[in-house]
Amino acid sequence: MTDSKTTDSKTTDSKAPGGKRARLVAAACQAVYQQGIEKTTLADIAAAAGIPVGNVYYYFKTKNDIIQAVVEAHLREADALLAAIESDHDSPRDRLKALFAALAGQVDLIARYGCPHGTLCLELDKRADAPDLAARLMREPVDWAQRQFAALGCPDADALAIEVIARYQGAALLSSTFRDPALMTREATRVATWLDTLPTGPPQSSAHRHAH
Amino acid sequence: MTDSKTTDSKTTDSKAPGGKRARLVAAACQAVYQQGIEKTTLADIAAAAGIPVGNVYYYFKTKNDIIQAVVEAHLREADALLAAIESDHDSPRDRLKALFAALAGQVDLIARYGCPHGTLCLELDKRADAPDLAARLMREPVDWAQRQFAALGCPDADALAIEVIARYQGAALLSSTFRDPALMTREATRVATWLDTLPTGPPQSSAHRHAH
Repeated sequence: MTDSKTTDSKTTDSKAPGGKRARLVAAACQAVYQQGIEKTTLADIAAAAGIPVGNVYYYFKTKNDIIQAVVEAHLREADALLAAIESDHDSPRDRLKALFAALAGQVDLIARYGCPHGTLCLELDKRADAPDLAARLMREPVDWAQRQFAALGCPDADALAIEVIARYQGAALLSSTFRDPALMTREATRVATWLDTLPTGPPQSSAHRHAH
Repeated sequence: MTDSKTTDSKTTDSKAPGGKRARLVAAACQAVYQQGIEKTTLADIAAAAGIPVGNVYYYFKTKNDIIQAVVEAHLREADALLAAIESDHDSPRDRLKALFAALAGQVDLIARYGCPHGTLCLELDKRADAPDLAARLMREPVDWAQRQFAALGCPDADALAIEVIARYQGAALLSSTFRDPALMTREATRVATWLDTLPTGPPQSSAHRHAH
């Protein structure tokens, strides 16, 4: 994964926040989230970023290049969110609740456009050309949740990680389908209750901290 | 909703199974499932149905007309599946397990293309023109599940219905993202265990059978 925080003199314009490349990637993230990959054109992205379409090709040759950059931007954001949750909460249970709450914190956007990661994965899943990109994006929160359940001493940490991320993704889909932000909020409360009553034990050997 | 089972003399060619309209709708269902709405053209659908593209306009003026027909075909299938489950199983618990098992019975397709209903809803959700279609498609299994939980005497039947359908939809998304059919099978087993241990009570007053 590239480190977007490094901004040496050579890459200042293209990689720094506000640089042309960063503006294009931000515009692409928003366009893909709101209208999907297929409908989004390089011209849309250029217009939203305020950059002549001819210049886009300097940064991205194909639409696939830009999709890759969008996925990498999402991965960096996910990484930053998970790191912030780890530093804010010591208990794995609190961390898992905080993850669901953070995602449910965007209920209005989710009720309109779905989960940014889930909807992107779903579009990528239909394409034959980029299954790895989608898998990387979804693997990140699943593996993180697995480590929290293992630290809680749950022997079925793998299955619980799939369950909690599946519940979140499913709730996001239903919330956007029914245009109902409250559905997502109710599910976050129910997941918190479920986590509070989950039987736990001594930490499992596979437990390890998220490395940064 | 139109009644596809009626085949009077005037509509035999256009509505009967094997008729041109039915072939176009079946081709559209498959194309939309495998490549998504945006990528599917009327020309693709005509070619898959073996019908000259010029004739397609006799049945469907716009892509939206065909999307509407695809959703209606899915609704009829869902209706038939739920009716079959009701006649095969008397216990609401067994019915809920049978629904998840029926969906998980298509694990290989789901691991490649996702849930046909979920992925269609997700694409429709991004469009501004057809939110009602997606909501109708997802309302059907949610309402059916709600009636089963109410018949089981669960006081929170509404929330449980959202939970079980969200778990299925989320598992389908993860299964296709990771290209992992076994993930879906494991989730079906875990949902069955969860249903078996769910505390129940006397049937709730809102319980009523699915009407046909």
